[in-house]
Amino acid sequence: MTTTRMEAFSDGVIAILITIMVLELRAPHESSLEALRPLWPVFLSYVLSFVFLGIYWSNHHHLLQAVDHVNGRVLWANLHLLFWLSLIPFTTAWMGENHFAAEPVALYGTVLLLAAIAYYILTRALIALHGRASALASAVGRDLKGKVSIFLYAVAVPLSFLSAWSAFALYVVVAVMWFTPDPRIEKKIAQ
Amino acid sequence: MTTTRMEAFSDGVIAILITIMVLELRAPHESSLEALRPLWPVFLSYVLSFVFLGIYWSNHHHLLQAVDHVNGRVLWANLHLLFWLSLIPFTTAWMGENHFAAEPVALYGTVLLLAAIAYYILTRALIALHGRASALASAVGRDLKGKVSIFLYAVAVPLSFLSAWSAFALYVVVAVMWFTPDPRIEKKIAQ
Amino acid sequence: MTTTRMEAFSDGVIAILITIMVLELRAPHESSLEALRPLWPVFLSYVLSFVFLGIYWSNHHHLLQAVDHVNGRVLWANLHLLFWLSLIPFTTAWMGENHFAAEPVALYGTVLLLAAIAYYILTRALIALHGRASALASAVGRDLKGKVSIFLYAVAVPLSFLSAWSAFALYVVVAVMWFTPDPRIEKKIAQ
Amino acid sequence: MTTTRMEAFSDGVIAILITIMVLELRAPHESSLEALRPLWPVFLSYVLSFVFLGIYWSNHHHLLQAVDHVNGRVLWANLHLLFWLSLIPFTTAWMGENHFAAEPVALYGTVLLLAAIAYYILTRALIALHGRASALASAVGRDLKGKVSIFLYAVAVPLSFLSAWSAFALYVVVAVMWFTPDPRIEKKIAQ
Repeated sequence: MTTTRMEAFSDGVIAILITIMVLELRAPHESSLEALRPLWPVFLSYVLSFVFLGIYWSNHHHLLQAVDHVNGRVLWANLHLLFWLSLIPFTTAWMGENHFAAEPVALYGTVLLLAAIAYYILTRALIALHGRASALASAVGRDLKGKVSIFLYAVAVPLSFLSAWSAFALYVVVAVMWFTPDPRIEKKIAQ
Repeated sequence: MTTTRMEAFSDGVIAILITIMVLELRAPHESSLEALRPLWPVFLSYVLSFVFLGIYWSNHHHLLQAVDHVNGRVLWANLHLLFWLSLIPFTTAWMGENHFAAEPVALYGTVLLLAAIAYYILTRALIALHGRASALASAVGRDLKGKVSIFLYAVAVPLSFLSAWSAFALYVVVAVMWFTPDPRIEKKIAQ
Repeated sequence: MTTTRMEAFSDGVIAILITIMVLELRAPHESSLEALRPLWPVFLSYVLSFVFLGIYWSNHHHLLQAVDHVNGRVLWANLHLLFWLSLIPFTTAWMGENHFAAEPVALYGTVLLLAAIAYYILTRALIALHGRASALASAVGRDLKGKVSIFLYAVAVPLSFLSAWSAFALYVVVAVMWFTPDPRIEKKIAQ
Repeated sequence: MTTTRMEAFSDGVIAILITIMVLELRAPHESSLEALRPLWPVFLSYVLSFVFLGIYWSNHHHLLQAVDHVNGRVLWANLHLLFWLSLIPFTTAWMGENHFAAEPVALYGTVLLLAAIAYYILTRALIALHGRASALASAVGRDLKGKVSIFLYAVAVPLSFLSAWSAFALYVVVAVMWFTPDPRIEKKIAQ
């Protein structure tokens, strides 16, 4: 089985998630710039989620560049990832509407944590299929960034209840860390 | 005619259906975890429908792997399947909002039943085009799983009025049964 | 320029239009089957529009099978078609919500008429690019079905104000007429 | 890295944005043609935004025709463009709902300005990757149209506060200017 349809389906779902989130930015009924002010937390959480979904799309793209074929298990590992990503518009809306209160910030991080774990499982399923000696396996290597992200999310979720903005700052740290696509895979492919 | 655009269009529709369902999970106006509690039936029905649409996408993918070309009749058999799948967000929302009451659970099963029949018709249209001696025909074989699913849905729909949760359990049984993609087709292709 | 992206973009837009229409089918707050009854005109107009969009997708697919390359003019003729198709969810919702009253039925037909004209323009732009001696030109031929559809829509729109249901019946006639994909192009390709 | 998935993802996002905007055209509860009249500013802003998104899709298509491969930086330049485009449904809705009042018209232009800058950055990132001697670089040339657009938007935004309709007219001027896809790239490819 080739990767074409799995890529196309994932592209479709991520493209729709990114654009569905923008529906939460509801146009105010007045035309004054004042009327836009209450939207800033919704906008801020939209920007963060856009970046996270962009990172997942970009990394997914890089990961599948190093992949030859897939099987049923990989398809479901991918659907599992898409499931957690599909909850991001909900947690984004809840976080934005409640001005970054503790609980929504914690739930936002929990969904990111579960998506990161799902991405890790997808990577493992692909390596299991291609073998430990494959270009993919050596490209992914110890997957330090993946493990650090999971650790940071796991710290941020309980931290939300002490200081929601510190948790939010940790999410931004993870986003910045991933912002550049994984050079390991780009290098390995170039070789 | 190649299968490319039929696959792309089906991927698009299923990807959108999966993500549109999540719009029913409306972010509560309060930030307490308590405020999430009333959402659990909506969330539970979302999870079930996500799994069903994932199964359809995965099986559709497997089915078309064994297919060379399509004709107008196959295109319409496919659109017929997509029509019933397109009603799943509606039945999911109705079932979730009414806490798995008898009628919505019965309608949910009816739409699943009609989608299963549509999938069966699509399989038959493809076999009619490729011939009884084709790899596809021998891969699909007697299609026991497909027939058992139709039978279980047909039992579950009237059962909803006696015990909605028993009907729901039957839907879960079908989902679990299909969870692994059809190994018959994978095997035949591998040969 | 190849047709790949124009096909992919059109598939995307049509897939989204088909699934967006289903959002008008809002789940009632009660669980009784009675509560579904007021939805029947919305459902009926959804079914008709699903069939029309399915026909456009299927014919678009057939048309581009016979096409080698596109140019900027074809891209815009295609966007022009997608523009009128994009209004179908609006006219469908208005017609369904107002139980097939005269004005919404007339507007529904007007948009179908403009989409049919846009499809005709797209066909002409493709033939202008490929030449009157091309397989495409001989496959499309006199395009009788296209012209009859435009005529029937042009009759149905004013007829709506006399008898909305007669106009609706004419729309169904056009749908049935187009239901089978154009065998001319299939034949020409097979040759 | 090939351009396939970047094209597919961009097509998906733009297709969804175009169709999501139409959700702002809410079907009135009455069936009279009178009831449609209040929708005209919403419709007019929809038409303008449809044309702008169509232009971006068409130019994106042309641009990537001249491109061989992409890297991580190009992926993010592209996501940056999609981010500003994703705000168009919001600014369109705000402008339409407030009958082209000064502030919404200014914000509409600001987002168009930022999207135009993002498109310019994407072009530069692609030229940086392919080299100043590439077919792409010579096809884009001095990019006069791109620079004039940015200038016109920059004029239109403050002008909105003096005369919103003059600003709106400038947006239409830019749209008309871009309406025909870039013949430079078409010519260069034909060579």
